[in-house]
Amino acid sequence: MEDGIVIEGMVATIGPDGTPHVAAMGPYVDGADPKRLVLRPFLPSSTWDNLRANGRGVFHITDDVLCLARLVMRTHIPAVEWHEMGDQRFPVVANVCRWLPFEAREYSVPGKRAWIECRVLATFDERPYIGLHRARHAVLEAAILATRTGILPAAEILRKLEQVRPWVEKTGGRDERTAFAELESHIRRRLSGA
Amino acid sequence: MEDGIVIEGMVATIGPDGTPHVAAMGPYVDGADPKRLVLRPFLPSSTWDNLRANGRGVFHITDDVLCLARLVMRTHIPAVEWHEMGDQRFPVVANVCRWLPFEAREYSVPGKRAWIECRVLATFDERPYIGLHRARHAVLEAAILATRTGILPAAEILRKLEQVRPWVEKTGGRDERTAFAELESHIRRRLSGA
Repeated sequence: MEDGIVIEGMVATIGPDGTPHVAAMGPYVDGADPKRLVLRPFLPSSTWDNLRANGRGVFHITDDVLCLARLVMRTHIPAVEWHEMGDQRFPVVANVCRWLPFEAREYSVPGKRAWIECRVLATFDERPYIGLHRARHAVLEAAILATRTGILPAAEILRKLEQVRPWVEKTGGRDERTAFAELESHIRRRLSGA
Repeated sequence: MEDGIVIEGMVATIGPDGTPHVAAMGPYVDGADPKRLVLRPFLPSSTWDNLRANGRGVFHITDDVLCLARLVMRTHIPAVEWHEMGDQRFPVVANVCRWLPFEAREYSVPGKRAWIECRVLATFDERPYIGLHRARHAVLEAAILATRTGILPAAEILRKLEQVRPWVEKTGGRDERTAFAELESHIRRRLSGA
C-alpha cells in the first residue's frame, strides 16, 4: 500500500460454528475513508483461520481504549450484533466510532505475519470522536506492550510503560486510569511468569 | 472539574480589532459530549486577553496533527469562517472533526496558568475520525515538546522525541512524517538558540 497508515482498532470475524471472534488489530488502511485494508495477524490466528474459511469481517474504528485494553487482555470480549448486508451477516461491536464491513481478497504469508488484502464494502458512522487525548494514547501503548511480553525484554517493557504513565496522570479520567492500571497488573503478572 | 479529562485541540477567539486568533490548547472537558470546558492558557496569552474582552470563542476537536503542529510552530495559522449564532459571530476552523462554540463564565489566575470556566453553547459534527493512530500521537507529543523548549532541558526533549519517533516510522503516512520532521527541525533550531 503506497501511502498506507496503520490504524489500531478491532476486527470481528466469524468462526466455523458461526460464533463471532473479536481481535485487536492494526491494519494498513489507504486513508481517512478507507477502501482497502491490509490485515497482518501474527500466526497462528483465529482471524486468519476465519477469513480463510468465509472471507468476511468488520473493522471497527474506536477511541474506546478501555474496551480495547480488555480485549487485548481477553478479560472482556465485546458483544456483537449481527448486521445483514445482501445475503450475508456481519458481526458488529457496539459503541465504536465507525465500522467497516469488508471482504478478504488475497492471502499470503510473507513472514511471521500474514498479509490479507481486504476490500471495504461500506462505512457506517456511529458516534463522534472524543478528540486527541494523551491518556488514551498512553493506554493504547500499554495495550500494545501487553502483547509484547515474551517478545521484548522485561526491562524495556517496564521502561516504556513508565514513559507513557505521566500522560494518564496528567490528562486521564477514570476509564483511562482503570485501563492503565489493569494493563500494568496484567503486564507485571506476565513478566513474573505468574 | 470532578472527572475531567484533557483533550488537545484548537481554540479560536476574537481580537480587539475583530481578527480571529487561533491557538493550540488542551482544556479540561467534562466528558465525551462536553458541556463545560476549562481553558488554562499560560500567561501572557492572547486567548486570555480576547476572552476577557468579549467572552466567546470556539473549541475545535480534531485528528489533524499536521495542522496542529504548524499552529504550534506558528508556521501556518488555519483560516477561519464566521458562524452566526444569535446576534454573535464565532470563528470556526475548517476540516476539524467537531467544533463547539462557548462562552467564558469565570476567570481566575491560580498559578502560572489562567483558569477560564466556559459553557459550551452547541456542538457541530463535521467529519469522522481517522481512528487510533500511533503516528499522530507521536506528532502530538512532538508538538507539545516544541512548546517546552526553554522550559525542559534539551536532553530531555530530544530523548522524548526519540521515544515517539518509531511510531511515525512504523505507522505514519506522508502527513505524519512531514509534521514530525518539521517539528524536529523547529525543536533543534530552538534548542541551538538559532
